[in-house]
Amino acid sequence: MTRYNSENRLLHGGDYNPDQWLDYPEILAKDLELMQKSKSNTFSIGMFAWSQLEPTEGDYHFEWLDKIMDDIYEMGGNVILATPSGARPAWLSKKYPEVLRTNERREKMLQGGRHNHCFSSPVFREKIGIMNRKLVERYGNHPALYMWHISNEYSGECHCEYCQENFRQWLQKKYPTLKDLNDAWWGPFWSHAYSDWSEIESPSSIGETMVHGHNLDWRRFVTDQTIDFYEHEIKDIRQLTPEIPITTNFMADTHDLIPFQSLDYGKFAKHVDVISWDCYPAWHNDWETTADLASKVGFINDQYRSIKQQPFLIMESTPSGVNWHEVNKVKRPGMHLLSSMQFIAHGSDSNLYFQWRKSRGSSEKFHGAVVDHDNSEDNRVFKEVTRVGEALEKIKAVKGSYKKAKVAIIYDWENNWALNDAQGFSNASKRYPQTLQEHYRYFWNHDIAVEVITSEADFSKYELIIGPMMYLMTEDVMKRLSTYVQQGGTFVSTYITGYVNENDLTYLGGWPQPLRELFGIKVTETDTLYPKDRNAVHYADQSFEAKDYCSLFELEGADVLGTYTEDFYAGKPAITRNQYGQGAAYFIGARTNLDFLERFYGELAKAKDLENAWVIKGDPDVSVQSRDFEDQSYRFVMNFSEETKEIQVATAGVDLITRTAHPTTLTLAPYEVLLLEEN
Amino acid sequence: MTRYNSENRLLHGGDYNPDQWLDYPEILAKDLELMQKSKSNTFSIGMFAWSQLEPTEGDYHFEWLDKIMDDIYEMGGNVILATPSGARPAWLSKKYPEVLRTNERREKMLQGGRHNHCFSSPVFREKIGIMNRKLVERYGNHPALYMWHISNEYSGECHCEYCQENFRQWLQKKYPTLKDLNDAWWGPFWSHAYSDWSEIESPSSIGETMVHGHNLDWRRFVTDQTIDFYEHEIKDIRQLTPEIPITTNFMADTHDLIPFQSLDYGKFAKHVDVISWDCYPAWHNDWETTADLASKVGFINDQYRSIKQQPFLIMESTPSGVNWHEVNKVKRPGMHLLSSMQFIAHGSDSNLYFQWRKSRGSSEKFHGAVVDHDNSEDNRVFKEVTRVGEALEKIKAVKGSYKKAKVAIIYDWENNWALNDAQGFSNASKRYPQTLQEHYRYFWNHDIAVEVITSEADFSKYELIIGPMMYLMTEDVMKRLSTYVQQGGTFVSTYITGYVNENDLTYLGGWPQPLRELFGIKVTETDTLYPKDRNAVHYADQSFEAKDYCSLFELEGADVLGTYTEDFYAGKPAITRNQYGQGAAYFIGARTNLDFLERFYGELAKAKDLENAWVIKGDPDVSVQSRDFEDQSYRFVMNFSEETKEIQVATAGVDLITRTAHPTTLTLAPYEVLLLEEN
Amino acid sequence: MTRYNSENRLLHGGDYNPDQWLDYPEILAKDLELMQKSKSNTFSIGMFAWSQLEPTEGDYHFEWLDKIMDDIYEMGGNVILATPSGARPAWLSKKYPEVLRTNERREKMLQGGRHNHCFSSPVFREKIGIMNRKLVERYGNHPALYMWHISNEYSGECHCEYCQENFRQWLQKKYPTLKDLNDAWWGPFWSHAYSDWSEIESPSSIGETMVHGHNLDWRRFVTDQTIDFYEHEIKDIRQLTPEIPITTNFMADTHDLIPFQSLDYGKFAKHVDVISWDCYPAWHNDWETTADLASKVGFINDQYRSIKQQPFLIMESTPSGVNWHEVNKVKRPGMHLLSSMQFIAHGSDSNLYFQWRKSRGSSEKFHGAVVDHDNSEDNRVFKEVTRVGEALEKIKAVKGSYKKAKVAIIYDWENNWALNDAQGFSNASKRYPQTLQEHYRYFWNHDIAVEVITSEADFSKYELIIGPMMYLMTEDVMKRLSTYVQQGGTFVSTYITGYVNENDLTYLGGWPQPLRELFGIKVTETDTLYPKDRNAVHYADQSFEAKDYCSLFELEGADVLGTYTEDFYAGKPAITRNQYGQGAAYFIGARTNLDFLERFYGELAKAKDLENAWVIKGDPDVSVQSRDFEDQSYRFVMNFSEETKEIQVATAGVDLITRTAHPTTLTLAPYEVLLLEEN
Repeated sequence: MTRYNSENRLLHGGDYNPDQWLDYPEILAKDLELMQKSKSNTFSIGMFAWSQLEPTEGDYHFEWLDKIMDDIYEMGGNVILATPSGARPAWLSKKYPEVLRTNERREKMLQGGRHNHCFSSPVFREKIGIMNRKLVERYGNHPALYMWHISNEYSGECHCEYCQENFRQWLQKKYPTLKDLNDAWWGPFWSHAYSDWSEIESPSSIGETMVHGHNLDWRRFVTDQTIDFYEHEIKDIRQLTPEIPITTNFMADTHDLIPFQSLDYGKFAKHVDVISWDCYPAWHNDWETTADLASKVGFINDQYRSIKQQPFLIMESTPSGVNWHEVNKVKRPGMHLLSSMQFIAHGSDSNLYFQWRKSRGSSEKFHGAVVDHDNSEDNRVFKEVTRVGEALEKIKAVKGSYKKAKVAIIYDWENNWALNDAQGFSNASKRYPQTLQEHYRYFWNHDIAVEVITSEADFSKYELIIGPMMYLMTEDVMKRLSTYVQQGGTFVSTYITGYVNENDLTYLGGWPQPLRELFGIKVTETDTLYPKDRNAVHYADQSFEAKDYCSLFELEGADVLGTYTEDFYAGKPAITRNQYGQGAAYFIGARTNLDFLERFYGELAKAKDLENAWVIKGDPDVSVQSRDFEDQSYRFVMNFSEETKEIQVATAGVDLITRTAHPTTLTLAPYEVLLLEEN
Repeated sequence: MTRYNSENRLLHGGDYNPDQWLDYPEILAKDLELMQKSKSNTFSIGMFAWSQLEPTEGDYHFEWLDKIMDDIYEMGGNVILATPSGARPAWLSKKYPEVLRTNERREKMLQGGRHNHCFSSPVFREKIGIMNRKLVERYGNHPALYMWHISNEYSGECHCEYCQENFRQWLQKKYPTLKDLNDAWWGPFWSHAYSDWSEIESPSSIGETMVHGHNLDWRRFVTDQTIDFYEHEIKDIRQLTPEIPITTNFMADTHDLIPFQSLDYGKFAKHVDVISWDCYPAWHNDWETTADLASKVGFINDQYRSIKQQPFLIMESTPSGVNWHEVNKVKRPGMHLLSSMQFIAHGSDSNLYFQWRKSRGSSEKFHGAVVDHDNSEDNRVFKEVTRVGEALEKIKAVKGSYKKAKVAIIYDWENNWALNDAQGFSNASKRYPQTLQEHYRYFWNHDIAVEVITSEADFSKYELIIGPMMYLMTEDVMKRLSTYVQQGGTFVSTYITGYVNENDLTYLGGWPQPLRELFGIKVTETDTLYPKDRNAVHYADQSFEAKDYCSLFELEGADVLGTYTEDFYAGKPAITRNQYGQGAAYFIGARTNLDFLERFYGELAKAKDLENAWVIKGDPDVSVQSRDFEDQSYRFVMNFSEETKEIQVATAGVDLITRTAHPTTLTLAPYEVLLLEEN
Repeated sequence: MTRYNSENRLLHGGDYNPDQWLDYPEILAKDLELMQKSKSNTFSIGMFAWSQLEPTEGDYHFEWLDKIMDDIYEMGGNVILATPSGARPAWLSKKYPEVLRTNERREKMLQGGRHNHCFSSPVFREKIGIMNRKLVERYGNHPALYMWHISNEYSGECHCEYCQENFRQWLQKKYPTLKDLNDAWWGPFWSHAYSDWSEIESPSSIGETMVHGHNLDWRRFVTDQTIDFYEHEIKDIRQLTPEIPITTNFMADTHDLIPFQSLDYGKFAKHVDVISWDCYPAWHNDWETTADLASKVGFINDQYRSIKQQPFLIMESTPSGVNWHEVNKVKRPGMHLLSSMQFIAHGSDSNLYFQWRKSRGSSEKFHGAVVDHDNSEDNRVFKEVTRVGEALEKIKAVKGSYKKAKVAIIYDWENNWALNDAQGFSNASKRYPQTLQEHYRYFWNHDIAVEVITSEADFSKYELIIGPMMYLMTEDVMKRLSTYVQQGGTFVSTYITGYVNENDLTYLGGWPQPLRELFGIKVTETDTLYPKDRNAVHYADQSFEAKDYCSLFELEGADVLGTYTEDFYAGKPAITRNQYGQGAAYFIGARTNLDFLERFYGELAKAKDLENAWVIKGDPDVSVQSRDFEDQSYRFVMNFSEETKEIQVATAGVDLITRTAHPTTLTLAPYEVLLLEEN
């Protein structure tokens, strides 16, 4: 990964589809001109080019790609070269129907769309293997080659007979005997015990949907099978170009903008060299403030940085609107620079776009792009992109820097799956990822750096760990969290924690003993409220609304910080703190609004000296994020509001983007961003 | 049924699934201890135990069940033994795919879930036949055996070729010739006449859905085929244990809590010895008052009691929340005793639960249970259950008593099917079951006993019969109602009555002559209002809102009690009374709110001396229900509100539950229930 | 078409289904009596009679139809004879499953419903061919035969292998080479280029849905294949009875009441001799005023008249409610005459009903009809129908007259398809047909005649042409519109115009040059607003709300009439006028409410002298529509409100319906209609 690490520039550019324009040489020529004008240096190529690379079986056409590679190289650009498995040509589906995915209703899908091949099909694996080998053989030594981009936005699942068989083998590897599987899945319930491995099928809405262990193992298998396919794709690539980094683009789930739920990226991240992801917030929407949304963007960026503990890439973002939101509104002036800088501020070493140029036909022809159908540099969007390109050149010093953080929030994909599957409580109000983002909000508002980790991470480096709604919690995690607190850490958890083990089997004997000791309480009931129901928590001489969930518990040593004030549990403890070894564990029994979390974490941050010392007087709408080298910090100051804001900081500085000096009182116009260097 | 009738105790206990815990002997031992502590005496066993009873084909394992039966017997308990057809083991589906249900889109379902076998499959009938024979041979003489519980919550339908053929044979039995069927189904409409029996298929969303006679016969067939399967299940059981009563558990439809709609329980009830049902009201919800919901619970209990004119059983209820409501909220303190006593008050001889113990895995692991995962008797729910167990022992004198009622409401399943199918009016506003519950509400509010009967019942025993929205009304019913009124009865009906005959064919020649004579009016039009439309009825010097439906009619002898005040029919009659022979028939032309029904039935109750003489001054939120022997009444007084209430009654008494004396002024705390004995 | 044109009466009557009543001779006799009493003269027969005409294969029964034809003839009536392809008998599906439609998920449908045969099936074409030949041979010379009614409400699509093959052949006819198709569909996008024609399949939700060119061609194919089937149906009929006009009944889409969207009626209209259609407005609903709805009815009537530039027929309408709206409310007194006269006022030469008599069973038994189940002439609906019958006899002089109009609105089916398919903007807010109806509203409010044309029409006859949201606009249309304005015409267009060509490929190089010249602007961006977002337009010293869409553009010669007042484009032009040759082109950049359109078109109408000179002082709720001969006009004055209204007109006159003289001040009771004759 010599070049990737040594090259001293932030990446700017994006998905480029010359394969759509081979009949338009004037367009291809104009592209090169506009790339340079917009200060773009890096292009992802080939994601969906299979039908141009191999229009009929065995008939390969790389000549057009040769030229594009050469042209970009001559221009001084990088190429992130993609394998084309994201969409297959029609001849492949026609001749080998097994490559088509089978949906959960056991319907064989037809050719069409994209991201829809069977991950198990031997034929598909063979064909993509040949294609990838040809690509690496031809371009592995090309000087423009900067990174491999494997497929595109892996997702979905297949239920064909190949996949059923792979699922059964996966299970046989995991469970020594069928009895073990029946035990783990609580087989006798509704007579669901199996008498032979061959009886097992994947979950289906026309078959089995309610065996939680089964669902959980299926989701694990889907992640593993996707990774297995990915590993098949990169085999030759890794062998022939060991020095070229490999990535595949991750996603988020909309429209709430939460981490992507279908695949366990915590697992997948171990297989990529660099995390890259596609981020599409709906700026200027009509249901939340700009700061509300910016905070969610910050959360996922922090997560995808933390998982590998290194800078990541934005592989896709849009210079204006997208084409698949409910409403596709154009970015207001200034928002593009601001939102692009936010990615960098949270640890991205790139701002790449989908897409370089709007296609002329088909479904994405109105998706935002650097170059519009007008093919012009006078376009407002093109100018805003160029402004970003120029800024990225000016701030290239931040490349490779990381972000120091003392606070971590735990997000586990498996917990999310199990919790969403749980019947009881209320499906509509579970909102695990959203709840984490609400806890995160305090820290974002107050410019305190946060990492978002899985429960596999090393806890010892943090002063505060927050793990709300850890419904699925293994005994090992209980033990590791106990050790962490014992040795001086602070841990905060909430309602709906500690219910089931790794097989989604409940703990017997009441709330788990390790948690009772850690928190000094015993949870006895969890009340689930209807949407219009409200309780309240009295905390720090104030009353805070409680909703959705109220845990009831008995004290076993903890101090009471807050109590319920309504219903049959009025006067009972709601918020507790337990001194445990050198550290402390807090339990928040009720779901509250942000005002409580603001107060609660405010006191905690003060007590533990977690506050951002550089921000003397901040503003919730102004986000301050730093990127840090050992002895150097770069501070991004970003106004995510439609009003002029003023904040006070500890030191004067120079904005790297505009080369303007700033006093310790910073005044920011709407959407304005500063990047202040500190020695 | 010697033992069932002779045993002098109310049943307390519920669904017990030791088959899930065979590897946990300490749990099974604890069960016996907790059963006794909670005053539980009766357990349903085996509903879903097939995979433990016959883990592979022909390999039977009854030894575990032997022990459970013995243990419960030794503890002094009863067993309600279930046949395991509610869910089948995977080997059965794998080896004999014909046992899998085919849905209405003609898709063969996969193994999974439950309640999903084909009712026609010869193989399934053979296999369940063998199993049931083994159960009755082994346990028929077991001293713990108290009752047979056939399958579980029969429901659904199958559209496989076996079922198609059975449907055709059912039709051939019903219709002498194909011409008769074509006439009954109005075949020439849209060219739907058949030329051969083999052309007929069941309704399907990818085929026929709009031939109303076809739909109606299909629903009848589904009920009959379900009963046919049930009769197959009980054949050997009845023969070998004629003295053991047989039941299967009926249901209600949520979330409105109306009678179960898919099967005609009026027919099915004739085949069971005792009606038992599963009742799951969503107490403490956020869309209705506690009294609103209690009234609906009362309605269905009254119905399931009235159908067989004998006490019934609650086979399932929950000690706390369930796991399948939109929100699963825990019962507030006191609600469990109150809601349990309400079942008894309306004629139940049991309060059984689903479930005894929460399972450890899979979909129902958070469904309310007597024993929680904590396995503890200190649990709040366990204590409330124990309170009920103790109360049931104290009030066992009510066992076997019935309920005297002079008022009946007619509910016909076939009418509900036909009315829901009717195109015209407005689908969203039909609400036939809900409308009946609204008429019922006056009587519940005023503590007047009601029976809910089908139109097959003997009318002569009632002083008032209420039959709203009798859209499908046979000539025979018209005649029997006429005779009833002629001989002194009072009948009340409403808009949308008397449209079609038993084939869903309209009556020709205008509103049926027998109804014209009975009501002294001729209905000419039925106006259907949009949701925001309102008319009004002037009645008894007051104006009442009219909505949804306004019948227009000409007077043919009836007296006008109320008139419309708006729109083109302002001034026209809306409410009438017709003296007919010794009795009278009332017609309510418009749908109104409860305030009108309160006024209307208030005057009727006064005039006909139907008021509850014992209640001197009642309260709508306090329900008084009595259970009566020939010369003895037990009065349940139940406060379905969150406030303390006071009512005046005619006689002082002693509360059987607390053994406390009460004066004629009864003061009830929130959710408090009294049971006063009268000699 | 001698008789059709020469007969001097307006048609009154409707769908008559004696085939349902062959066992009820007394009903058939009563029909003839009631037909005459209701002044009905024309009946559509046989639409769904196949199972009565050919109950088993090859066994034909025409004797009943012979008698009906004779009876109607003797009564002096006309017969519109239908071919029975709208629904097929069960034996046909059973013996030849290929006649059953295959849905887009590739599921073979079952027998049932109607309008569900495969349009390609050779067997179905053979069988209907034989049937139609028999009908024309037997009744071609029958004196009652007035018109042919081919099938019924053609709609839907089939995806069977026959249809796939026909689709491929249709494509091969259209595209010289596969490369041409790949270019038109932008094939390389997502690797969707085909390498062989056989790879192409119809769009499917389990396959391809996002290739816009593919979708557009499929919709075109469906229209063409439907017409091809229709042409097959009429082959022998046309040959044997060339003088009898042929029609098939068109529809509208509810519940918004917009033109039918699935078939391109602009194309289909060329194949029928007379346009007839089925119109079912939801009068008296609770979401719009009576005038709001009447205006939409006017729009579609104007459209179906304009497409063939000749009077049309109302083939179906209801005398009261229908049975398939969400709420089926009865027509208020007077509404039936008013709404019937509205059809005539906009150019209909008929008012025919679905249905003559309510059927006794099945799905349409409560659909409004002239004759109810009471079989009575005393019925309110029957009397209102008779009133219409009498009125039609009195106003027969209008028959054959057309309507002079100087204003046209362009509606293109293909544009609607392409626009609905477009990803970008906001799906929920596109509302192309509804937007046209909003522009139409000014003219309806002010009694100015409008034609609704396709962009294929001759533009030269209009003084004003309005073409909002012409997203798909061919270069030819640009050119023809330019010529039209050049030569003195006035053209108004809006946001989202001029994006794509006939293949749904975007124009390259920015907004098309011809449009830039025509409008004197260059559109650069289109902002899409969220539902709660609002901007505003300052126009004519007033502020008007802007929503949904705001186009941004640069001026290239146009005059600015209105500017935006909010957001980053505050002060930028929103409404422009460009002098172009002898004419002018207006551009409305933002979507507004009706108040702006009222103001905008008010000034335009005044400037261009388009106002209705006869209406001195009108009322928005009172619609004035004229039918014109060369030298004679008939003016319908219709009060679409629930209040008495007064308007001032230029000349006194006599109401043809009541033969009452009216001064120039016309006072209209609620729902009143006048027809004033002018010489």
